[in-house]
Amino acid sequence: MPDSKSESLATLDQFARLDTQRRERTGIPEAIFAEGKTPEQVSHMLDVLTEKAGFALATRVSEMCAEHINDHLSSKFFVTHNRTGRTVVTMRKNYEPKSTGGKVAVLAAGTSDLSVAEEARVTAEVMGCEVFTFYDVGVAGIHRLVKPVETILQKDISSAVVVAGMEGALPSVVRGLVPIPVIGVPSSVGYGYGGKGEAALMSMLQSCSPGLTVVNIDNGFGAGATAALVANQVAAAKMK
Amino acid sequence: MPDSKSESLATLDQFARLDTQRRERTGIPEAIFAEGKTPEQVSHMLDVLTEKAGFALATRVSEMCAEHINDHLSSKFFVTHNRTGRTVVTMRKNYEPKSTGGKVAVLAAGTSDLSVAEEARVTAEVMGCEVFTFYDVGVAGIHRLVKPVETILQKDISSAVVVAGMEGALPSVVRGLVPIPVIGVPSSVGYGYGGKGEAALMSMLQSCSPGLTVVNIDNGFGAGATAALVANQVAAAKMK
Amino acid sequence: MPDSKSESLATLDQFARLDTQRRERTGIPEAIFAEGKTPEQVSHMLDVLTEKAGFALATRVSEMCAEHINDHLSSKFFVTHNRTGRTVVTMRKNYEPKSTGGKVAVLAAGTSDLSVAEEARVTAEVMGCEVFTFYDVGVAGIHRLVKPVETILQKDISSAVVVAGMEGALPSVVRGLVPIPVIGVPSSVGYGYGGKGEAALMSMLQSCSPGLTVVNIDNGFGAGATAALVANQVAAAKMK
Amino acid sequence: MPDSKSESLATLDQFARLDTQRRERTGIPEAIFAEGKTPEQVSHMLDVLTEKAGFALATRVSEMCAEHINDHLSSKFFVTHNRTGRTVVTMRKNYEPKSTGGKVAVLAAGTSDLSVAEEARVTAEVMGCEVFTFYDVGVAGIHRLVKPVETILQKDISSAVVVAGMEGALPSVVRGLVPIPVIGVPSSVGYGYGGKGEAALMSMLQSCSPGLTVVNIDNGFGAGATAALVANQVAAAKMK
Amino acid sequence: MPDSKSESLATLDQFARLDTQRRERTGIPEAIFAEGKTPEQVSHMLDVLTEKAGFALATRVSEMCAEHINDHLSSKFFVTHNRTGRTVVTMRKNYEPKSTGGKVAVLAAGTSDLSVAEEARVTAEVMGCEVFTFYDVGVAGIHRLVKPVETILQKDISSAVVVAGMEGALPSVVRGLVPIPVIGVPSSVGYGYGGKGEAALMSMLQSCSPGLTVVNIDNGFGAGATAALVANQVAAAKMK
Amino acid sequence: MPDSKSESLATLDQFARLDTQRRERTGIPEAIFAEGKTPEQVSHMLDVLTEKAGFALATRVSEMCAEHINDHLSSKFFVTHNRTGRTVVTMRKNYEPKSTGGKVAVLAAGTSDLSVAEEARVTAEVMGCEVFTFYDVGVAGIHRLVKPVETILQKDISSAVVVAGMEGALPSVVRGLVPIPVIGVPSSVGYGYGGKGEAALMSMLQSCSPGLTVVNIDNGFGAGATAALVANQVAAAKMK
Amino acid sequence: MPDSKSESLATLDQFARLDTQRRERTGIPEAIFAEGKTPEQVSHMLDVLTEKAGFALATRVSEMCAEHINDHLSSKFFVTHNRTGRTVVTMRKNYEPKSTGGKVAVLAAGTSDLSVAEEARVTAEVMGCEVFTFYDVGVAGIHRLVKPVETILQKDISSAVVVAGMEGALPSVVRGLVPIPVIGVPSSVGYGYGGKGEAALMSMLQSCSPGLTVVNIDNGFGAGATAALVANQVAAAKMK
Amino acid sequence: MPDSKSESLATLDQFARLDTQRRERTGIPEAIFAEGKTPEQVSHMLDVLTEKAGFALATRVSEMCAEHINDHLSSKFFVTHNRTGRTVVTMRKNYEPKSTGGKVAVLAAGTSDLSVAEEARVTAEVMGCEVFTFYDVGVAGIHRLVKPVETILQKDISSAVVVAGMEGALPSVVRGLVPIPVIGVPSSVGYGYGGKGEAALMSMLQSCSPGLTVVNIDNGFGAGATAALVANQVAAAKMK
Repeated sequence: MPDSKSESLATLDQFARLDTQRRERTGIPEAIFAEGKTPEQVSHMLDVLTEKAGFALATRVSEMCAEHINDHLSSKFFVTHNRTGRTVVTMRKNYEPKSTGGKVAVLAAGTSDLSVAEEARVTAEVMGCEVFTFYDVGVAGIHRLVKPVETILQKDISSAVVVAGMEGALPSVVRGLVPIPVIGVPSSVGYGYGGKGEAALMSMLQSCSPGLTVVNIDNGFGAGATAALVANQVAAAKMK
Repeated sequence: MPDSKSESLATLDQFARLDTQRRERTGIPEAIFAEGKTPEQVSHMLDVLTEKAGFALATRVSEMCAEHINDHLSSKFFVTHNRTGRTVVTMRKNYEPKSTGGKVAVLAAGTSDLSVAEEARVTAEVMGCEVFTFYDVGVAGIHRLVKPVETILQKDISSAVVVAGMEGALPSVVRGLVPIPVIGVPSSVGYGYGGKGEAALMSMLQSCSPGLTVVNIDNGFGAGATAALVANQVAAAKMK
Repeated sequence: MPDSKSESLATLDQFARLDTQRRERTGIPEAIFAEGKTPEQVSHMLDVLTEKAGFALATRVSEMCAEHINDHLSSKFFVTHNRTGRTVVTMRKNYEPKSTGGKVAVLAAGTSDLSVAEEARVTAEVMGCEVFTFYDVGVAGIHRLVKPVETILQKDISSAVVVAGMEGALPSVVRGLVPIPVIGVPSSVGYGYGGKGEAALMSMLQSCSPGLTVVNIDNGFGAGATAALVANQVAAAKMK
Repeated sequence: MPDSKSESLATLDQFARLDTQRRERTGIPEAIFAEGKTPEQVSHMLDVLTEKAGFALATRVSEMCAEHINDHLSSKFFVTHNRTGRTVVTMRKNYEPKSTGGKVAVLAAGTSDLSVAEEARVTAEVMGCEVFTFYDVGVAGIHRLVKPVETILQKDISSAVVVAGMEGALPSVVRGLVPIPVIGVPSSVGYGYGGKGEAALMSMLQSCSPGLTVVNIDNGFGAGATAALVANQVAAAKMK
Repeated sequence: MPDSKSESLATLDQFARLDTQRRERTGIPEAIFAEGKTPEQVSHMLDVLTEKAGFALATRVSEMCAEHINDHLSSKFFVTHNRTGRTVVTMRKNYEPKSTGGKVAVLAAGTSDLSVAEEARVTAEVMGCEVFTFYDVGVAGIHRLVKPVETILQKDISSAVVVAGMEGALPSVVRGLVPIPVIGVPSSVGYGYGGKGEAALMSMLQSCSPGLTVVNIDNGFGAGATAALVANQVAAAKMK
Repeated sequence: MPDSKSESLATLDQFARLDTQRRERTGIPEAIFAEGKTPEQVSHMLDVLTEKAGFALATRVSEMCAEHINDHLSSKFFVTHNRTGRTVVTMRKNYEPKSTGGKVAVLAAGTSDLSVAEEARVTAEVMGCEVFTFYDVGVAGIHRLVKPVETILQKDISSAVVVAGMEGALPSVVRGLVPIPVIGVPSSVGYGYGGKGEAALMSMLQSCSPGLTVVNIDNGFGAGATAALVANQVAAAKMK
Repeated sequence: MPDSKSESLATLDQFARLDTQRRERTGIPEAIFAEGKTPEQVSHMLDVLTEKAGFALATRVSEMCAEHINDHLSSKFFVTHNRTGRTVVTMRKNYEPKSTGGKVAVLAAGTSDLSVAEEARVTAEVMGCEVFTFYDVGVAGIHRLVKPVETILQKDISSAVVVAGMEGALPSVVRGLVPIPVIGVPSSVGYGYGGKGEAALMSMLQSCSPGLTVVNIDNGFGAGATAALVANQVAAAKMK
Repeated sequence: MPDSKSESLATLDQFARLDTQRRERTGIPEAIFAEGKTPEQVSHMLDVLTEKAGFALATRVSEMCAEHINDHLSSKFFVTHNRTGRTVVTMRKNYEPKSTGGKVAVLAAGTSDLSVAEEARVTAEVMGCEVFTFYDVGVAGIHRLVKPVETILQKDISSAVVVAGMEGALPSVVRGLVPIPVIGVPSSVGYGYGGKGEAALMSMLQSCSPGLTVVNIDNGFGAGATAALVANQVAAAKMK
């Protein structure tokens, strides 16, 4: 078995050089999911990542955790806390964020979905996109879609994140009105049978609207990152 | 314990007089759910009910069962088989069906939902209603709703059955456009996660549209009967 | 693509005029689902809606939220808080609520179901109906149904809301005794397997009683609104 | 470790004498669940058990399997096939079945439940009980319960098996009318959400009627055996 | 429709005499499920029931609720609070509880199951039975079953309640060793997949041991009541 | 109510002009889901769509249905049947398909996933993309990813569809290696707990890889359409 | 981004050498899961693998598929078909299987579990182990465990596979009697709630017996392979 | 029935000698699952077990419970509290723990999985193994696997515990790189659909990597005990 062993080790040795440039490899910076971690852990990880990459993002940050981060890192970095979106962004004081030219829309159906929508917005902005937000555009008041659809078409926006709880019909409807990919985010809003986002997730997966893809319940970060990834590709293509 | 016993029996004795006039008591005639019954059983039950009530309805009737019924009962009764809706109606040859003046709409999202929609239509017609059907009006082509909404408003229709599978959004949308109660019927159309009508059922139950109530998956009979019950009440009120 | 774009925008422009007369269009006033909203948000939404429509309804209102509403709006509007039903109704001081003549029954199986039943009652009253309540009429004591059935028949009540948790059998039983549509509301009462209203919801959907339709678990608002919609139709028909 | 080993073996050695008198130990004879076994296997097992115990019972026997049994064992034993209940009982020709004096009732809600009910009946009869059957007593026609309740009270029946599909309310209702333990059997009758017996099982488990216990979906054998076990205990007590 | 109406009312009128002698009719006294009720409501219901029936039982009683009951009813009735079983029994000071001679065993697998087991014990005692308890008899230490099996056989116990969480195998094992009906109670003990009693419930329903029936998760009251019902029947038969 | 009515109708009238240019509006042509439709229906719909749009696509086409289409439409149109992908494409004989310059990759883990992967490929090709397929690249043989990753990077591919059943880990792994959006398609491959694609769907939704979004189980069409939508946007941007 | 690209490609290049010696790397030979593959595909894969590794194993092989393999490969290889276990083993005619000295036990609860047990046995044998089988040792007849426990202890067997359906209690019981790791395999035997192996899987996962680990429902191959892996390690250690 | 009775009792009598040497019989010491037990109960059980066996282990110990144990037992025993793993080990002051020579690896994907991983580590150490831990080795950074794989191969480690939440892919990946049995532990880390460990459990059960077996969600104790059992067998074999 010695041959197999030495080969395995040799091969694995190659992995070591792989993870150093994650952003370049995947197009998305690493983020810290703060839920279930202590403020100390989150703070430490932000510190390390910011030193390395110039900036860092933490999601699902509690009030208490955000305060701890501010207390420990604000003398060293710029610290931006988005209360609604429960995000914290830290940035080296000499870091210059780059604008990619990518354009992303974020739509949400109701006030209860704002937290998820803001998480998506912050994520896309951190990735260099210009983000256009349209909140409170539920299917009940379909006329409220005029403004976002108009903007998406006129501004040449490349992708849209649509957050919806309850029956989760909004992403399908939006997708039917604009010629860009839509990322649906079921939010954990609802009650009784199918509550906690399950009905919304199911509906989006059952939707007959091709061009609509889905991330997990309340995953604003994943949706924002994907939308920005698409938008940044388009922006980069324009510049070529 | 003798006292308790005799009282129980005395009370139960009163039940015996209760079931003789079901239609008067509940407003809906008895129907035979043919699935899981032999053609002989269904045929026999239709025979007995038709003799008693003048007519009878069987649902979920297979082709083979319908043929059996026709062979055995058509000499004695009028037998009407609706292939799409899988219903059979039998009627004493001297029976005069009454028109109540009730008006019901039945809408369906796609060709796969026709079977359930037709079951609802036949049920409401058997209960004396005039039924207006609008098939192939899915949310994707929202402009196709112009005709049904127009008709519902102009003809003063009292209630609507809306059948939808997949993400099940149609009943919510219809309910948002017309001032009458809507009965949503999830149909067992769909695939993967939430298929077989589960996503449609969940979405309808999660819907933010008050005035929308729901029956079980594929239960066209229950939906048609409820719609007719409402419409017949309104029609009766007009005649007072 | 310019043609398509301009057409989309033109069409969407038509939506803008659609939402102004929601009550007329759907027969049901807008309500605020207070759960998951801050007292400030609820209070503000009530303020705006009351100014516009003369009155407004909030459901799932916590004690704390109700106090906040009272503190901020009672000088301006009449504020009515139903503790059991967790509802708040606000009304412009010069507003004259209209009675439609519609008649609705609300039945509940046990003390644990009162909250949902009261939510239904308040909703139907806000929509102008006269509501007859019969609480504590569980299937175990079937003789307790005498009074409600008698009243429903004698007063010519047009629709009934029936709230039940546990095995959820009451709506079926009631439906079998009265010739009017019954809206079943599963309540989140129960334990172990099928608890939290799931068994009740399933049973109601499996029920063999046509004329019984269902809303989601604990959705007293939806049930009350549907019952009132039916009753108001019948009342309007009588007046013609 | 040798000590532990020898002790384990010594102890296990005692098990060997345990299984020889199963019926005496548990009060219920062994039965063969034929589903998923070949006709040859079932036939062979019946042969062995009948030789040993004087008689044997097989459940879930297909038509084809029953024919095979008849072909191979009817020259040697009495073979009784119950088509509806899908049971086969074999008996040594010189075997004298004993009557225990136990009295059991079996009730079923509809024609679709007959198969399960008959399986329960045959099981209780094989265990020496007198069985009183009442089929087609669904909750919809509550007056049809007069006869069974009367009989249960007058004949001093000790336990009841109640089979029900759909919403599964019948066992609760029966339990509320008679002072004996009721064993509920959910049958796999129903459709859509909660179909295949799930709603019935949930409802029975959620039921507020103490004295009602449950076996798994379609388990007529288990219900019949338990009912007979109770009835035989009571009968034995009377003889003391 | 007047005929139908008057008949319905006449029939329903008969119900009114039905519920007065519940204990005689069902063999089990009414109990109050305290969870989800206020201390005032529970206290009041105990008061009324005790006045009427001589004694009353409340289950799932919190510490706080028990104190409230004691404060308000102990001057008038004997009040007995079982902390582990979370039950309260109230009794008129001149009431003489009757012993039926029924004998019931209660077994539990671990300390976490005691609460449910005690609820079953108190229930059976309230119904007049002598109860033999065997706690901490999990399948892991199968030799601990010697004592309970011995006692069940020697004392001629008529029925057994067996409480088990986790994989829920104990009721099957016990049932295989004693010739009496066993009522399995899954307890909400366990973790991860199948936790909260679901695995235990499933296992008991899948068990190959006929004579084992099941109640819902943590339903010690239902199990104790059924066991006592069986035991009281046997005891009554002996006295004949 | 007349005002509201006429307004509703006026607004709805605007819808009628909306659906005529679906492809322009959404970027994706309409497709026919053949499952659950008769060969006649599918054939007819293809005929109509092809006449209107120059070409048409049907998915989930059975062998029998494909033959029917070929028999009826091949004299009139070019008919292309992909057996593995179960698709049929029809094209007017004078239609010139346009190449968009968009580049899409399709990866699949095993032979059982080919059907879904081919459906995605055909869809993206119909939408004008160049598609690079890499089948049999499961996580077990991670070295097999060299070729696809290399190609994706060198050919400047804009988006990837990754099909995987069983534990569904492949899309996460691929996403971690390439800087483009990945659309995961769970395939209904697997067994036991989590089989039929459920584990794969769950894993993809739980994945820590941002930039991975998901469509429903076996929905190759939706995934291919989304991938093409992204790629076409990028290609269009390059041309500006 | 060129640096990142070239690095990715360089690293991936290393993968290519990794998969050539799978058996050495993982201790388990590759097997072909035949379900969902055509006989041609299975036959071809067996051919390739046998040429490369000297032998090959296919599982879940249908009768028809086995015949096809025999027809095409038996002239070239030794072909062994295990009907009960649905496996086919092919071997180069000059191949000398090695015996590792590893010892494995396979236990099964009933005739319905034989297929899964045999799949485990064949797998362990192919991996060089001596396998001791004990079938029909269900918990109901606990004395039947004497023989297997005795053998496991006396023969110094290193690991055991235990297959069980229904309530799945056997692996726990066996684990409690022998000091070796037990791999539980839930089999898809059972009915109603928790049927198809779900109750068995849950019970095994909930079991209080440490030392018991689990594979998916019916996964005899995985269980046999793990057991052989353990046994081969022990055997190899003895030889050192 | 006397014969059967006396036999049952005689046989059961044999059980009594069985449980005295659990560790010898099963290879794993008894542990106390502290969740759901009072500090007093846990403390008492530790006391008794330590007196009997020289040491004892409690898992899922809260901070409060650990303090109680320390206060009551530290004067008598050595008490070791692992905060992260929530374990307490007590040891008689004169007890000499034995080292078996067994070698076990424990890997975890992220900081959220540490608690479960540490529970596994402590368990294996208590069973005499040397444990090598590798935390923070998630699939995203696959190069981080170099160190653990290297160590496992070079140190001749016999088994590995791999803890993973979210999509749960790590155990499969590790299993594909090392020739030893891997025990996967799904951790209750994750969110939305498939959260709480369900997706991780499903993925591990669906994994195509033979040699991977699974314990229930968060069951670090069971995994550690199984790994140690395997490692101790191998170590014992080496010494022979």
